[in-house]
Amino acid sequence: MRNQVAVVGAGMTVFGEHFDAGLEQLAARAYRKALASVDRGIEPGELQVGFFANVMGSLAGNEIPSGATLANAIGLPGLPVSRVENGCPSGSDAIRLAALSIASGVYDVAVVVGSEKLRELPTRASLLESGRAGHPILSYANTAATIFAPQAVRHMHEFGTTREQLALVAVKAAANAALNDDAQRRTPVTVDDVLASPLVCTPFNVLDCCPQSDGAAAVVLCRADLASRYTDKPVYLSGVGLATEALYYHEKTRLTGWDATVLAAKRAYEMAGVGPRDIDVVELHDCFTGTEIITYEDLGLCEEGQGGKLVESGATALTGRIPVNPSGGLLAKGHPIGATGVAQYVELFTQLREEAGDRQVRLRTGKAVQHNVGGYSVGISVVSVLSREA
Amino acid sequence: MRNQVAVVGAGMTVFGEHFDAGLEQLAARAYRKALASVDRGIEPGELQVGFFANVMGSLAGNEIPSGATLANAIGLPGLPVSRVENGCPSGSDAIRLAALSIASGVYDVAVVVGSEKLRELPTRASLLESGRAGHPILSYANTAATIFAPQAVRHMHEFGTTREQLALVAVKAAANAALNDDAQRRTPVTVDDVLASPLVCTPFNVLDCCPQSDGAAAVVLCRADLASRYTDKPVYLSGVGLATEALYYHEKTRLTGWDATVLAAKRAYEMAGVGPRDIDVVELHDCFTGTEIITYEDLGLCEEGQGGKLVESGATALTGRIPVNPSGGLLAKGHPIGATGVAQYVELFTQLREEAGDRQVRLRTGKAVQHNVGGYSVGISVVSVLSREA
Repeated sequence: MRNQVAVVGAGMTVFGEHFDAGLEQLAARAYRKALASVDRGIEPGELQVGFFANVMGSLAGNEIPSGATLANAIGLPGLPVSRVENGCPSGSDAIRLAALSIASGVYDVAVVVGSEKLRELPTRASLLESGRAGHPILSYANTAATIFAPQAVRHMHEFGTTREQLALVAVKAAANAALNDDAQRRTPVTVDDVLASPLVCTPFNVLDCCPQSDGAAAVVLCRADLASRYTDKPVYLSGVGLATEALYYHEKTRLTGWDATVLAAKRAYEMAGVGPRDIDVVELHDCFTGTEIITYEDLGLCEEGQGGKLVESGATALTGRIPVNPSGGLLAKGHPIGATGVAQYVELFTQLREEAGDRQVRLRTGKAVQHNVGGYSVGISVVSVLSREA
Repeated sequence: MRNQVAVVGAGMTVFGEHFDAGLEQLAARAYRKALASVDRGIEPGELQVGFFANVMGSLAGNEIPSGATLANAIGLPGLPVSRVENGCPSGSDAIRLAALSIASGVYDVAVVVGSEKLRELPTRASLLESGRAGHPILSYANTAATIFAPQAVRHMHEFGTTREQLALVAVKAAANAALNDDAQRRTPVTVDDVLASPLVCTPFNVLDCCPQSDGAAAVVLCRADLASRYTDKPVYLSGVGLATEALYYHEKTRLTGWDATVLAAKRAYEMAGVGPRDIDVVELHDCFTGTEIITYEDLGLCEEGQGGKLVESGATALTGRIPVNPSGGLLAKGHPIGATGVAQYVELFTQLREEAGDRQVRLRTGKAVQHNVGGYSVGISVVSVLSREA
């Protein structure tokens, strides 16, 4: 499927609080922005298939959104739309399925929208408070922070990663988000701010955790050989990998990383025919500061155990060797779950077209990596490789 | 994609009450039956991609199953698995996405599992009691019966469809289910039984409504040109269509049918290059008796308004001209939502291979149709065409 599918449009709402808009209104706003971003224009009637990523709709308010929810929200009743709910990688898996659908030859042009409403949930139903793991064996009362914390603690123990190195991830995220009008947390923070913020779950304080967010993001994909209809600057999907891993902690092979990410990255790199050294810029799933440090290693951006030193060196800063999360990431741009993976594509589309303004990274190869990891007990990951050249 | 993908294995659990098994255990049982059904055998390691259909997992118990839930349940952590939650067509959409993934050239062999636990929900959370429509505009307190009833009432008003004709659908379903060891309601019923059963919502009595069911179903799909590795009797996926329609009643174009079904059928028939007259046997979404009568018309099995007469004529009975729901259908086989569309494939795989025993239908063309319709406010449908010849 390498470079058979191109992104030709991408847009998102501001992430944050949207008490004026529901799931559908946010979806429609992102959709309109994505269509408006197509350089030569696109008519809604040119869209042949859709994918809708949303996770919490089913949990909040007892709704069951379906593909029809999106089709109606964007004024296209009739459009075939699948709804994908696959943990935190829902948005990127929706894009993966859209790309596979185009590569099948059945559809030429697809729209993918991720939308999520989290800010109207009561605190006890929030993502931070509850990982929603009502599983008979996996522990009850798991929270998102407690699901991701053990790996961070173990990483500190095994490799000497420091509390300050974790905090530096949040400092970098906030610095980048300060340059992003669509980000939720735009106030710069210092290491001292992070260390002084209230404890959530060792080793994470509040500023080590991504916020609760409302928001939506959308992309338009098409057959690569049709991309010139829409733009002179398409971004190609060079590779994409999805992987799962053991859910039970006693079956996980290690506690300093996630096999799902390693395997998804291997699949994406192989499909794209590249390695981590070929990558100019990365948008990865920094739901917690420790997750970013570990993911550096799982994606092969540095050796195992060196993630803390990588952020400390400045290599992943906006002006560093391999900028990570120029958008501000989940930590500072926000994390409206179903929209998150799609929004990472929006950022990389903008970066690879060199349209990111003050937060534009320097491009060498014109290749970028997108990454999500999540699901209860952290069992699933998507990694994508994007390229400005086919 | 016509005939590029073949079904080479299919299996299901008994539908009904499974207080001994959770969502994962049921999924694993259906998976093992599907693998065991592959004539020349298949190793789990030959499966390259998976799709998991489940709807109520998110609503019952606050769980968020993901693709990793299935991968772990079947002992294949690592397998890329997407979770599809797309209303009542979740299972058939999962198969559609698996087929598109194979047609893309990225994967050769896929497994699709649908699994659902409904029997442990309290009555007030059940499918019959609650359509789960917590939508700000669509009415609260919608139930599944009230969502599907208006079309049945209007159909009776417009076309003279009778209460007895509705009841005959339930009579037929129970008669077929009596021949199906996997069915939930195996006791034959009469028109009088249906009419004497307690009222749920005009015009539906209890026996006009499908039961609450636990259960799972699974199919193995592969590239058609590889099917001979696995069996001499593959069943080909000739066409599949997904469609949405307007959710709001004031925007629906008619109240005696569902445009989503009509459009999905058009897409499936066109892909397959067939029409409704070419079909030997149908498994359709008879969640309520009235839904089957209306769906005869939406699928083109008879003229608009003639659905009541069609069932009365016996044409859709097991020995009729166009047998519908030889399995017993949702009404009598049961309706574990995510498993339902997959189980329809299991039945048609069995029928087209002439392995259905006492309930085997007579084949002429060797072509079959599968159909689901649902989602809140009935906004989404999948129709598939299967064929024993490529």
